[in-house]
Amino acid sequence: MSTARKKPEPGTEINLDDLPCNFARFGKDQPLELDCGLKLKPLTIAYETVGTLNADKSNAILICHALTGDQFVASTHPITGKGGWWEMVVGPGKPIDTDRFFVICSNVLGGCMGTTGPASINPETGEPYGLKFPVITVSDMVRAQAMLVDHLGIESLLCVTGGSMGGMQVLEWLAKYPERVHSAIPIAAAAKHSAQNIAFHEVGRQAIMADPEWHGGDYARHQTSPSAGLAVARMAAHITYLSEAALHTKFGRNLQDREQLTYGFDADFQIESYLRYQGSTFVDRFDANAYLYLTRAMDYFDLAADFGENLGAAFQAADSRVCVVSFTSDWLFPTSENRDVVRALNAVAANVSFVEIESDKGHDSFLLDMPEMFDVMTGFIDAAANRCGL
Amino acid sequence: MSTARKKPEPGTEINLDDLPCNFARFGKDQPLELDCGLKLKPLTIAYETVGTLNADKSNAILICHALTGDQFVASTHPITGKGGWWEMVVGPGKPIDTDRFFVICSNVLGGCMGTTGPASINPETGEPYGLKFPVITVSDMVRAQAMLVDHLGIESLLCVTGGSMGGMQVLEWLAKYPERVHSAIPIAAAAKHSAQNIAFHEVGRQAIMADPEWHGGDYARHQTSPSAGLAVARMAAHITYLSEAALHTKFGRNLQDREQLTYGFDADFQIESYLRYQGSTFVDRFDANAYLYLTRAMDYFDLAADFGENLGAAFQAADSRVCVVSFTSDWLFPTSENRDVVRALNAVAANVSFVEIESDKGHDSFLLDMPEMFDVMTGFIDAAANRCGL
Repeated sequence: MSTARKKPEPGTEINLDDLPCNFARFGKDQPLELDCGLKLKPLTIAYETVGTLNADKSNAILICHALTGDQFVASTHPITGKGGWWEMVVGPGKPIDTDRFFVICSNVLGGCMGTTGPASINPETGEPYGLKFPVITVSDMVRAQAMLVDHLGIESLLCVTGGSMGGMQVLEWLAKYPERVHSAIPIAAAAKHSAQNIAFHEVGRQAIMADPEWHGGDYARHQTSPSAGLAVARMAAHITYLSEAALHTKFGRNLQDREQLTYGFDADFQIESYLRYQGSTFVDRFDANAYLYLTRAMDYFDLAADFGENLGAAFQAADSRVCVVSFTSDWLFPTSENRDVVRALNAVAANVSFVEIESDKGHDSFLLDMPEMFDVMTGFIDAAANRCGL
Repeated sequence: MSTARKKPEPGTEINLDDLPCNFARFGKDQPLELDCGLKLKPLTIAYETVGTLNADKSNAILICHALTGDQFVASTHPITGKGGWWEMVVGPGKPIDTDRFFVICSNVLGGCMGTTGPASINPETGEPYGLKFPVITVSDMVRAQAMLVDHLGIESLLCVTGGSMGGMQVLEWLAKYPERVHSAIPIAAAAKHSAQNIAFHEVGRQAIMADPEWHGGDYARHQTSPSAGLAVARMAAHITYLSEAALHTKFGRNLQDREQLTYGFDADFQIESYLRYQGSTFVDRFDANAYLYLTRAMDYFDLAADFGENLGAAFQAADSRVCVVSFTSDWLFPTSENRDVVRALNAVAANVSFVEIESDKGHDSFLLDMPEMFDVMTGFIDAAANRCGL
């Protein structure tokens, strides 16, 4: 597990083993069984915890991150230096109150911030896996998280929550480990990935694979990186995270540091400059192969398929309380798809509530300052804690 | 004008001068004045005509093609072998009835099917222009078309029509040459390009420019082509031409020629296979630099900006009858933006009608079998012809 990744400043590399977080290491005797039929071993899971686990280990909340998120949910990111990606949600007195709850957030299986992924060393070759890493699923991600939760000696989770790909993991927890989940908040998610979403992911993957520096996934050995392709992938995806209204309000046709059009291909418009910035900063903190694997896992996600095409059956055993949250302007995981989840939960008489939050910020709303979301989470988690006698 | 482009079958090249269409050639004494301040000379315009121009030259209809269209509106495409891109609209007894009307469709300025564009020979260097080609605008495109119409000895057009970028040109005709346009049908267009649309174009341009085979636009001299980048650009754009509903209905999560997921990065899903096909066939018929220039022209389009930010003023002089057409599921040029055009025309008491057509096919609806659109066009053009005593 000694893979090293570039920091923004060339020459100053971060060894992933030195990341300021915890690591759970599972040896060859504890393989992770994957949906593809292979076994992954050894397995490292990098994770952050915040707050204190109580004596009877009943106050744990698991947070599942989205595609490009990581375990640094409430602490400074070691590469970007920015605050935790959900620090508005997680902290003392916050909706997920770390004075009361023990928060766990692990880097997802297949990721690139310390958990085993395609940049990790393949024990069979001594080289980074690259495309020899097995194709993983959301179900595999959750199976790995369950191993971590076991490792921490925690029997059941007070709450599991997360947005987007994180929300997919929440749904998977409900379906596969219903007895271990007291309550769940899937946010801006869906029970399956739509054709349009697969299409956007495929564009991103093709952009990466078209980059000659990708070298069939073997760029580590070539000591290079398909940064240009990954940046294009990020730019395309980033558009889908916002809403047309947000783009219009934030940028419109405003020019970037100039009075008039330059009749050239520079970033005349602010939106161009913004997108280029999003692309160029992303490559400093993310691994191209990890992007391929995680988008693939999302594409493969189709919870009903594991239950005879009956989404209700997926939740048959769920005794958990569930609060589904969507945002009005989210066109990547629109309200209609979140409502499908609610309908399936209702069909099996699950205890489910549904909140559609008015926002013009698009899919990324769950990462932003959304007082209504904070209120919903605060109330829901508080009620769950009360029921558990916390 | 001796630029040659690849046909699908390697080794069989088409010389653009041999294209089965007409060419209008404007010498150095007839420069095209561009918005950027430069003059373009010489200028070739490749165009197709269908039908017969009547004695008093009053039955001409100009069709403006979209970003990746060309002059082959109603005849077999010389590279793809497919039928004309609007042959359902243009022909004997069709909505644009070539038994009655004389149809003109020219390859747009900056394009790559015979009209002067970045792949044309720069007279100053004897080499293809590449990025030395001036950045053009929709206004420049229309100014070039007006030169062609003059060249054909036609004073005024019975109708100007087109969809998407073609619709932008229609609006430009109304604003800049109102006295030469009896009637106009802008379809699935807008008076300015939105931030989201600029964003998608910028992703496509960055994909092209990230391809090392692009060579700063100078790939002709390197005898190569940024096909991989152009294919990615096309894939991203293609998603925006369809609707989520169309993708869901047509592809959903259907697998491509297989019974189950392969746990790999092949095109498991039909939508992936379809997109890859769209990308790979596009590069056989389109030039990467032309894609840069035409997307840029669309981004720059903001008709009100030329008229003191007052879109109504753009249409002040228009005595033409106008029929604006939009499609319910078009999210690239949504009904709201088409309605802005209608509102501006109404504000100056222009003779305008507006039809929003119910379709789940997205932006590309204007290229598809849309009986309601055909009926609207037939009736509107027939009425215009009657008023002109045809």
